[in-house]
Amino acid sequence: MWRNEKYETVPLDVKGIDEDNSKGTTDSLYPQAALRKAQQGNERPKDPKLWPYFQDGLRRIDYVLTYHVQKPQSTRKQSAKSCLCFKFRREQSSPPVHEDPELAAQEQRLDYHEDDQRLRREEFEENLREMGLEMEREEGNKIPGVGFLKIHAPWEVLCREAEFMKLKMPTFKVFVLVNMFVQKVTATLQPKVGENRVENEKYLSYPFSREKQHLFDLSDRNSFFDSKTRSSIVSTNPFRKAFCLPSQGQFKTKCHLSPDLITKGPDVILILSLQILCEEWASYSIFYKYQPIGLIRKYFGEKVGLYFAWLGVYTQMLIPAAIVGVIVFLYGCVTVEDNIPSMEVCDERNNITMCPICDRVCSYWKLVTACGTARASHLFDNAATVFFAIFMALWATMFMEHWKRRQMRLNYIWDLTSFEDAEVSHEENVKLTCRDRMPAYMTIIVMMVFLICVTLAIVFGVVLYRVSIMTALHMSSTPSFRTNIRATVKTTAAIINLIIIIIMDEVYGAIARWLTIMEVPKTDKSFEERLIFKTFILKFANAFTPIVYLAFFRGRIIGRPGKYIYVMGSYRMEECAHAGCLMELCIQLCITMLGKQLIQNNLFEIGVPKLKKMLRQRKIDKKHQEELDKTLHRHEKDHFLGPFVGLNPEYMEMIIQFGMVTLFVASFPLAPLFALLNNIIEIRLDAKKFVTELRRPIAVRAKDIGIWYTLLRGLSKVAVIVNAFVISFTSDFIPRLVYQYMYSPDGTLHGFVNHTLSYFNVSHFQPGTEPTESMHLGYKVEVCRYKDYRDPPWSDTPYEFSRQFWAILAARLAFVIVFQNVVMLMSDFVDWLIPDIPKDISIQIHNERNLIVELFMKQEQGKKYRNTIGDPSPQPLRSRPSSQA
Amino acid sequence: MWRNEKYETVPLDVKGIDEDNSKGTTDSLYPQAALRKAQQGNERPKDPKLWPYFQDGLRRIDYVLTYHVQKPQSTRKQSAKSCLCFKFRREQSSPPVHEDPELAAQEQRLDYHEDDQRLRREEFEENLREMGLEMEREEGNKIPGVGFLKIHAPWEVLCREAEFMKLKMPTFKVFVLVNMFVQKVTATLQPKVGENRVENEKYLSYPFSREKQHLFDLSDRNSFFDSKTRSSIVSTNPFRKAFCLPSQGQFKTKCHLSPDLITKGPDVILILSLQILCEEWASYSIFYKYQPIGLIRKYFGEKVGLYFAWLGVYTQMLIPAAIVGVIVFLYGCVTVEDNIPSMEVCDERNNITMCPICDRVCSYWKLVTACGTARASHLFDNAATVFFAIFMALWATMFMEHWKRRQMRLNYIWDLTSFEDAEVSHEENVKLTCRDRMPAYMTIIVMMVFLICVTLAIVFGVVLYRVSIMTALHMSSTPSFRTNIRATVKTTAAIINLIIIIIMDEVYGAIARWLTIMEVPKTDKSFEERLIFKTFILKFANAFTPIVYLAFFRGRIIGRPGKYIYVMGSYRMEECAHAGCLMELCIQLCITMLGKQLIQNNLFEIGVPKLKKMLRQRKIDKKHQEELDKTLHRHEKDHFLGPFVGLNPEYMEMIIQFGMVTLFVASFPLAPLFALLNNIIEIRLDAKKFVTELRRPIAVRAKDIGIWYTLLRGLSKVAVIVNAFVISFTSDFIPRLVYQYMYSPDGTLHGFVNHTLSYFNVSHFQPGTEPTESMHLGYKVEVCRYKDYRDPPWSDTPYEFSRQFWAILAARLAFVIVFQNVVMLMSDFVDWLIPDIPKDISIQIHNERNLIVELFMKQEQGKKYRNTIGDPSPQPLRSRPSSQA
Repeated sequence: MWRNEKYETVPLDVKGIDEDNSKGTTDSLYPQAALRKAQQGNERPKDPKLWPYFQDGLRRIDYVLTYHVQKPQSTRKQSAKSCLCFKFRREQSSPPVHEDPELAAQEQRLDYHEDDQRLRREEFEENLREMGLEMEREEGNKIPGVGFLKIHAPWEVLCREAEFMKLKMPTFKVFVLVNMFVQKVTATLQPKVGENRVENEKYLSYPFSREKQHLFDLSDRNSFFDSKTRSSIVSTNPFRKAFCLPSQGQFKTKCHLSPDLITKGPDVILILSLQILCEEWASYSIFYKYQPIGLIRKYFGEKVGLYFAWLGVYTQMLIPAAIVGVIVFLYGCVTVEDNIPSMEVCDERNNITMCPICDRVCSYWKLVTACGTARASHLFDNAATVFFAIFMALWATMFMEHWKRRQMRLNYIWDLTSFEDAEVSHEENVKLTCRDRMPAYMTIIVMMVFLICVTLAIVFGVVLYRVSIMTALHMSSTPSFRTNIRATVKTTAAIINLIIIIIMDEVYGAIARWLTIMEVPKTDKSFEERLIFKTFILKFANAFTPIVYLAFFRGRIIGRPGKYIYVMGSYRMEECAHAGCLMELCIQLCITMLGKQLIQNNLFEIGVPKLKKMLRQRKIDKKHQEELDKTLHRHEKDHFLGPFVGLNPEYMEMIIQFGMVTLFVASFPLAPLFALLNNIIEIRLDAKKFVTELRRPIAVRAKDIGIWYTLLRGLSKVAVIVNAFVISFTSDFIPRLVYQYMYSPDGTLHGFVNHTLSYFNVSHFQPGTEPTESMHLGYKVEVCRYKDYRDPPWSDTPYEFSRQFWAILAARLAFVIVFQNVVMLMSDFVDWLIPDIPKDISIQIHNERNLIVELFMKQEQGKKYRNTIGDPSPQPLRSRPSSQA
Repeated sequence: MWRNEKYETVPLDVKGIDEDNSKGTTDSLYPQAALRKAQQGNERPKDPKLWPYFQDGLRRIDYVLTYHVQKPQSTRKQSAKSCLCFKFRREQSSPPVHEDPELAAQEQRLDYHEDDQRLRREEFEENLREMGLEMEREEGNKIPGVGFLKIHAPWEVLCREAEFMKLKMPTFKVFVLVNMFVQKVTATLQPKVGENRVENEKYLSYPFSREKQHLFDLSDRNSFFDSKTRSSIVSTNPFRKAFCLPSQGQFKTKCHLSPDLITKGPDVILILSLQILCEEWASYSIFYKYQPIGLIRKYFGEKVGLYFAWLGVYTQMLIPAAIVGVIVFLYGCVTVEDNIPSMEVCDERNNITMCPICDRVCSYWKLVTACGTARASHLFDNAATVFFAIFMALWATMFMEHWKRRQMRLNYIWDLTSFEDAEVSHEENVKLTCRDRMPAYMTIIVMMVFLICVTLAIVFGVVLYRVSIMTALHMSSTPSFRTNIRATVKTTAAIINLIIIIIMDEVYGAIARWLTIMEVPKTDKSFEERLIFKTFILKFANAFTPIVYLAFFRGRIIGRPGKYIYVMGSYRMEECAHAGCLMELCIQLCITMLGKQLIQNNLFEIGVPKLKKMLRQRKIDKKHQEELDKTLHRHEKDHFLGPFVGLNPEYMEMIIQFGMVTLFVASFPLAPLFALLNNIIEIRLDAKKFVTELRRPIAVRAKDIGIWYTLLRGLSKVAVIVNAFVISFTSDFIPRLVYQYMYSPDGTLHGFVNHTLSYFNVSHFQPGTEPTESMHLGYKVEVCRYKDYRDPPWSDTPYEFSRQFWAILAARLAFVIVFQNVVMLMSDFVDWLIPDIPKDISIQIHNERNLIVELFMKQEQGKKYRNTIGDPSPQPLRSRPSSQA
């Protein structure tokens, strides 16, 4: 994150280099044939200068940095000056110590600002050189204004850093993996990147140590560390040192923000891997296949690999959810004819007169007109819904568990089990006390509260819009208008909501970043976590407030006939249609999910990057470009690709979707299906983006998906409570149950509709609110009905909440308690039942540990033996395929 | 656990050996003066043969095993034969290969069984010898029938095993710890075991590796690994190999159970450490001081150290809880005079006639007679109780967090941060499929369900006892009897409950062990976890079922006057006293906590071990014993001490107590105080037991308290729900609130008592149940009152639950939902707010990592330098106190 802002750095990797480094993992193997073919193909540059080596043709380029060399347009010298926060600050007048003659000649042309930047670069390079790295500069050769700094890590540096990082490297020893039955069954679904021969073998790996070199196959030093490892070795430790420790003083925040330091960086694409990735990953035609996770990891690093693995597991897990969801929906469709409540609503013999839905202009209406809605509601509000809510809560737990296991498996296969995430802390430099931080914290809290209030205000605004438009439309005299009133208003309001959500999403993202920078977190990791957390809170509130309003508040705070609640003077609060708000909640969810996914996917994820790429290429005129295409190094070509902005937006999108799928699943059983369809496209879309549109990101090692897992867990917990409330309060499930077992004379639902409607004596209307066209139905209405549990006008306590109301409320609340605790208990039980580490992996790890002990014992005995016969040379253990199960 | 059953093994440690190994940790330093004094004192044995060395006086004894050499009394040859499950099973007829001439002479005296045992011992010893250990035998010299096998680990073995175990050892480098302000403030509370000089210094530690020996101070090889480390090195890896891997076949379970293999093992006590431990730990006079955790760990190992650290943290955390609890109780005492409901009960002007509490023999009674109970109830049922319940839920979270931090700190100080718990799995040998395990699992489930049913039956039995005795007493004609009826029955029932709980505790412990053995878990760790889990479930159910019955069921399933519920023919279910069952719950909790603690502590923890010790010593006659006392080695003396049976009983006791403190705290605010007083004694009691009564346990390395933490977490989650239910259902808090805000005419509680009582028309009594002495009160009763919310006899629906009933029920349920979710949210928030790793420790760890990198870089530069000037010898970095902050 911060690292990007000085030099934008990306690892270098060129085809053909990794070819003999395909051991170590099972699923990351390149098809050797494809490799060879591609090598012989015309993709191979003829010019030896285009190979990724220094000018001497011996030292390999492991990393490329770029920087601007032309005059900067901005004149913000002062801000740059305050950023001269290097430890060994040099005077501008004194000439730099390690001076390049070539550079010295150019120096007079540079203004003060440029000079300052150059000094800082030199300081930085000096630090790198102290760490033992070797460098070569290439300035403004082909692309004007861009300088390249190529970095080579010598063998000693690689070894040292690998030891510090406790990198597990493959030893000579090969052992056979436990044969996985599942893998055989799913063979046709596997992408074609590995050779079956070696799939069930693994090299025993051991943390690299210079003293234990005899354990490792060092016959070819150039390929022992593969290019991803080399570049991540170069990028991790020495860079950290050079960037953070000596160079940042207490001006750190400013340094990080200073725009002068941001330079563009190129990337080199490994064409061979890319070719396979294009064919076996970034293609819609193979949507049904597993992703080549090993290859993705090999090319993009562990962090990106984990993202796609997670996305794959999520999509895979959505399949059963979608199937069950569809079944539940179909069950609703099938049983709609047998549903007694909707039959009663549609039965014209039940001559029920309802109270008007708006003041004055609306008149009394027949319940039978709500027949359609009642029938539609049954699709989403039936007995199967409760089952589905429980199923989805357990599904969420299963998903978490499944992911934990998958992650563990990947950790094992990728040799990350002993990897410790070394947090780079800036504590030595930044000693901010609590009092220093107080203002920032206060601002953050105030801002967050304010922004959430803004979200609420927006939702309230939309409600007002709906209410006022509705009233206005009701007042219109054209009858054809009125029939479509509800549908029109609902749809426009949902679309407005959607647009606001999408716009505010971007705004909130920017605000969250600003707030996090203000907070000055101590480490990169904590910066990222805090940013994610804030963004999540805001985006989540943004996406879900309208839905929560619909589910729990709409139609509940309307008052009763004769005593309605009014907002803004004379607008009555919205009522729900007869059969509950579940139907409307459903429509809103549907529009939000589909709309958000379509717009965000298509517009933001494909459109915008393409546009940017076009803009970037337009800078260089066309003829020139064609010429360049032939001569440019790969890393120079990649200069025109879009930068990698991190995985957070991708994760965020998915997590909001996960929220949609789990939180209100009780009201919309088709949500998993929509999510599944979206994700199948999403995977390939992201793949295409990563492969063709973006520069290759720095390979970051990561053991897990970090805070996202915590957020997922939190969401699945909240989902239990929300679903409990949706079932008990939004749906009519509990009233039906209570009626059936407490009030029904014959134990069936006959008479349920009548039971839910209270009586209102029309003479009790507030003056001026009674309907003007009171004879609309053709007869004089004396008592109308409304949906609520209140005492009738003729009781001792007219219009008070009735005994039924309290009994049903108690039942609803009891259901919430039971549902929440039972489902949570079941989730915990499932969590406990499924071991976190897959059994075969735990056996593997155990075997591996035994093998290592054995190896050492053998080695020791060998030593003893040699000592007795007087041969002191260390003997490498080249007992290759001893193949222990 | 299993290891004990072949040889009972314990590490050896003799005074004076550890003296120059006091570096590495801050709080584990021996006062050098005390050490020297003790060394010069007469504790030092004069005879060189008593030193802990082999006969040659050079090789140190690191471990002692014992075994029986006399003829066994049992004749279970057949079972022993089936246990001959060694890999290289030898024929009984063929003579043993590695035969001792001395043993061969004895052989003819041994019967077949003894021979079999000896063969197995030899096999075992051969395995140890293969691992590189050296042994010396000492058979039946002084204590008849006991043989000792002394084991010495040579330097090479120690180094190799230390490397496998990744033991972090101190290097030359010293660095200054961050000064802890708190430690200075609490200086007077610290035990006097360390010297202040070195308290804020720590040796930089690094995982031991034979190739990096130059990092460590190896000037004195004998003291580099201290005795605890040596013995744990010996006991861990080679023993595991020798015991588990080759020797156990599929007869494993039987092997583990075979009584022939159990032999007694002695222990040697480190007198010097013991002296300090006695003075600064195992003494009641210093109960206010912190425990010398470092020293405890040094002497007993990390696992025991963690237990006492945990107990210390728990006790410390109980102090604020006890204080707040006492304040809440006092608040109840102070406000009892202003409490309107109890005033109304006690007011004789409210001439309320209550319905009889039993059929026929009981008569109507005046509510004013319940005045005392009503006032007492207020002590435990007032507004402060709700606050206290919330406080305790947060307290539990704080406790967990505090412990996590403390554990992390200890892990750092004890250099366990990189320690991995190597699970010893027996999977290679035991390949039990699911179908093999099914019968065991089924048995376990059936047994667990059965046992829980037994617990329920017992509680029901006690209830029946109470009901029947109550009825019998009521029938007695003596009036003096009747007045004390309730008190007598309550107390006897509570005591009966207590006795049953204590007896069943022991029974359930045994059953749980039996069930776990039947399950054949794969690893020692999983054995222990499963055992703990089962024991916990059973003991928890045992301890809490009576309390749960009292809190939630008693007085709720009684029916109503005229329609009572009868059990066993004619017994009416128990009613609560007027002011709720909270009072009785309180008494039950009080008796259970006090009684359980007193009896279990005094009888089982002190009495039984003393008795056992006496019995053991009685075997050897007195005169002989005095003589022995002078000549015996320490390990021979320790033969008479009790064996160490693990920490599980201690933890279990504490966790049940934790349950008492958190689960029903809403009903008994004094529980934390009782627990605190008990624990202050418990710590010193356990200390005395560990120091004087038991053999020294094998030092087991552990990073955390394992499953106990999970159980604690589970308990504190359950506590939130239970407290929510206690407040809303057991106490009258919600009815009072509902009355005040919904029904009270003036917004106060005046009239509350009347509101809670329903009317009953005495003419509606079932025939034969009306009171015989109906004129007992001096007037004819037509309508009596009972505590319930039901419609009066004159309404349309007589004796139906009234609207108030449903409203209050809804309020109660709503409170449960709100309380549970708010408190859980608050707990999660507290959890999130407090970082798991204390700040100073995370800075330390970061500093240490930097120091190591620096050290390596320096070393590398040194090498380079030497290489250029041609000096290839590795130069140790003896730059001792470079003292970097």
